[in-house]
Amino acid sequence: MQLLPGFRDFYPDDCARRNYILETWRSVARRYGFVEFDGPVLEPIELYKKKSGGELVGQLFDFTDKGERHVALRPEMTPTLARMVAARERDFKKPLKWFCVPQFFRYEKQQRGRLREFYQLNCDILGEPSPAADAELVAVVIDLLRGFGLGEKDFVVRLSSRTAWQEFFARAGGQPEDEYEFFQIVDKAERNPPEKTDAALAKFGLTAQQVLDFMRSKTATAELAPILADLTARGLGGFVEIDYAIVRGLAYYTGVVFEVFDRSKNERALAGGGRYDKLLSLMSDGKTDLPALGFGMGDVVLANLINDTPAAKAQLDAWLARERAADVYVVIAKEERRPEALALVQRLRDAGQRTDFPLTAAKIGKQFQTAEQLGARIAVLVGDEWPQVKVKTLATREEQFIAADAVLACFQPST
Amino acid sequence: MQLLPGFRDFYPDDCARRNYILETWRSVARRYGFVEFDGPVLEPIELYKKKSGGELVGQLFDFTDKGERHVALRPEMTPTLARMVAARERDFKKPLKWFCVPQFFRYEKQQRGRLREFYQLNCDILGEPSPAADAELVAVVIDLLRGFGLGEKDFVVRLSSRTAWQEFFARAGGQPEDEYEFFQIVDKAERNPPEKTDAALAKFGLTAQQVLDFMRSKTATAELAPILADLTARGLGGFVEIDYAIVRGLAYYTGVVFEVFDRSKNERALAGGGRYDKLLSLMSDGKTDLPALGFGMGDVVLANLINDTPAAKAQLDAWLARERAADVYVVIAKEERRPEALALVQRLRDAGQRTDFPLTAAKIGKQFQTAEQLGARIAVLVGDEWPQVKVKTLATREEQFIAADAVLACFQPST
Repeated sequence: MQLLPGFRDFYPDDCARRNYILETWRSVARRYGFVEFDGPVLEPIELYKKKSGGELVGQLFDFTDKGERHVALRPEMTPTLARMVAARERDFKKPLKWFCVPQFFRYEKQQRGRLREFYQLNCDILGEPSPAADAELVAVVIDLLRGFGLGEKDFVVRLSSRTAWQEFFARAGGQPEDEYEFFQIVDKAERNPPEKTDAALAKFGLTAQQVLDFMRSKTATAELAPILADLTARGLGGFVEIDYAIVRGLAYYTGVVFEVFDRSKNERALAGGGRYDKLLSLMSDGKTDLPALGFGMGDVVLANLINDTPAAKAQLDAWLARERAADVYVVIAKEERRPEALALVQRLRDAGQRTDFPLTAAKIGKQFQTAEQLGARIAVLVGDEWPQVKVKTLATREEQFIAADAVLACFQPST
Repeated sequence: MQLLPGFRDFYPDDCARRNYILETWRSVARRYGFVEFDGPVLEPIELYKKKSGGELVGQLFDFTDKGERHVALRPEMTPTLARMVAARERDFKKPLKWFCVPQFFRYEKQQRGRLREFYQLNCDILGEPSPAADAELVAVVIDLLRGFGLGEKDFVVRLSSRTAWQEFFARAGGQPEDEYEFFQIVDKAERNPPEKTDAALAKFGLTAQQVLDFMRSKTATAELAPILADLTARGLGGFVEIDYAIVRGLAYYTGVVFEVFDRSKNERALAGGGRYDKLLSLMSDGKTDLPALGFGMGDVVLANLINDTPAAKAQLDAWLARERAADVYVVIAKEERRPEALALVQRLRDAGQRTDFPLTAAKIGKQFQTAEQLGARIAVLVGDEWPQVKVKTLATREEQFIAADAVLACFQPST
C-alpha cells in the first residue's frame, strides 16, 4: 500500500516543516494588511478553461463526479479568486489585499523533485492601478523571504514589464494582435540560438540582437521608475534588479511582471507574478472590471533554498526545536499519587502548558528519559513529598521543592 | 460560474472563522502532547476498500487519473494513518499521540446543511492498551470543546463499550461471529419499534426489553470504571455519562466507544471515536500490530454550536475582532513625506506590527476613516512636523507628538 507518485506524506517532522512555511507566510502577509481567504479544492472545469490561455488545462486532475459534473482539483487560485470577487465585489472596500495558502494539484510528468501537489502562497491586490500597488506587492514578496532569514545575497527580484516590450514592439511597427507571439519569442530569446530568434523575428522587421540589447538594458522605464523609488524609500532597493528578460509565460499579464530567483548558480525560481488588469473582466464576462496584480510562491523550492542557506536553516531548526518541545513533563514517582498527578496535569494544561506524563506506571529514570526525549523544559515530580512536588529545570538540573498548588507560578505564560 | 454544490467559498470572514476552529484544535491538541501529521488529499482507492466494512466507499469522489490509477479524494484519515505508521513504525516511540486537521470529501446526498467537504480534527493514540489511554483521549476531546468556551451544560461525552455488549451477548449464549449483526440491532433498538427488535433478536434468544434495560443501566463495567476514575481525578467527571446506547456504526471498533453530543434538544453529534485495536494489523496484513484509539471532530456542527452558545460566541467574536484588527495605520498628511512614511511603514512591519497605509494620496479625514475601518489601534501621522510624528490612540483619541525614530517604543510587541 503506497502513496501516489508525486504526493507527500507529512510525518510529524515533515508536517512541522510545512507548517513553518505556512505560518511564516501567514504572519508576514498579515503584517502587510493582507487578509486570508480560501476557496474549494474542487471546481467546475469550465472555471479553468475560461481563463485566457488555459495553460494548465492539460495538467488537470479532472474527472466526472457522481452527479455528472466535469470537475477538477484546483491547479491555481486566480480563477477562484476572480469568481469570488465578481460575486461579492460591492461588499469589499478597494483596494482588496487578499492572500491564501492553498494546496494545488497538477498532473506533471514524473521527474526527480517534481511533485503533483504543492502549497503556494498567493498575494493579490485588487482595485488599485497605481504603481504604489506594484511596489507594495514586490515589498511583501521580499519581506516574505526575509521572514525565513533570507537576505540580499540569497535572492533577487527581477522586475520587468510587458508594457516596456509592448512599447518596444510598437516602436518597431508591431501590431497589438501580434504582441503575444512576440512575447513568446522574447521569452525564448536567451535560450534559443540567435539565428532561430532572427528567423522568428524577421516578419516583424526585428533582429535577435535588438531584442537581446533591450533585454540587457537595465534602465527603468517611466512605468518602473516610481516602483523602484518606492522600494528604495522602504530600504528594499537592494533586492530588486531591472531585467527585461522576464516576460512570464501566462497570456493574461498586462503590465509589470517579476520573478524572484535565488542568487546561487542554481537560479531557482522562488516566486513570480505581475499585473493582470483585464483578467477579472474576462472571467466575469465584464461584470467586474478591477485592475489587479498578484504573485505565487511555492513551498518546494523555498524549502530547498532554506535548507541550503545556513542562516535560514538555523532559524528553521530553532523554530522546529521550540515546536517539538513540551513545556512540562509530570513524573509520577509513586503510582498511588496518580490521581493527584492527573489533577496537576489538568491544571497545567488549563494554564496553556504543553504537558505530558506517563500513561502507565514506569520507573522514575525512564520517565526522566521520556521527558528529555520530548524536549520538556521542566519536570515536576509527584511522589512521597506530596503536597510538595519537586520541580526540576532539565537544562540546568536545578531542583526545588514547592507546594503543588504554587507550581503554576513557576512557569512563564506559554506563547 | 458557480461553486460546486456542497463546497464552500471562504471569504475573509469565513476563512477567519475556519481558522479559529483549526487553530484552537491545534493549540489544545498540542497542549496534550499530540503532534501533528498530514497525508495526501488523494490516495489509491484500494486504501479505502481495504478497511473492514468499507462504509465510505459508496460516497467517494473517485476517478481514474491520467496514469490509469484509480484514486479517491480522502473521505477519512484512519487508512492513511495506518499506512504511514506501518511504513515507519520503528522510528517512533510508543505510545504515539498524533493529530491532524485534514479536509475530507464525501459525495453525500444533497440536503440542507449537508456538505461534501469538511474539516475534521483527528486525534489518535497508538501503542497503548491501558485504559489510561482511553481516559487521555476522552480528556482531550473534552478540553478541545472547553477550548471554544463550551462547558458542562453545553455538551456531554457518552461513554460506552463494545466489550460490554460482547459480554452481554456471550452471557446470552451469542457467538462471536454474530456480534456485528447483534451490534447493528442494538444500534437501532432505540429508533425501531420493540416488536421489530424482538423479531430480529429472537434467533439469539433475546428480547428488546433486555437490550433496552441494559442500554439504560448507567453502571460502569470493570473496563469503564478506571476510565471514569481517571477523568474524575482530572476534574472532568461531570462531562461524562455512561450510555450503552452508543455502539458506533463502523465495523472496526473493538472496545471503548464514545460520542459527544450537545446538550440542547438538537442533540447534535460533535465527535465520536473509540478503540480499534485490530485495524492496524488488518490494514498492514499483520505487519504492524498496535492497539489504537482515536476520534474525529468535524468543523460544521461545532461551528453551529459555537454560534448558538452565547459564551462561546462571545469568545469567537473577541478572537475575530483581534484577528481583523491592524496594529497601526500610517496617515500620510503630506504627500511630499511619502518616502519617509514608507520607511516608517517598513520599520513598523519589520518590528512585527500589522501596518497599513494609503497606497495613493487621500484626504486626511478619509485616511483616518480607513484606519478605523481596518480596526487599527494606533494611527501615526506623517506630515509637516517631520521628523516628529503624531501618534493617536484611536479608541481613546489620545494624541502625542514623538520623534519618528522613537515611534516603535510606543507599541507593545505584537502577539
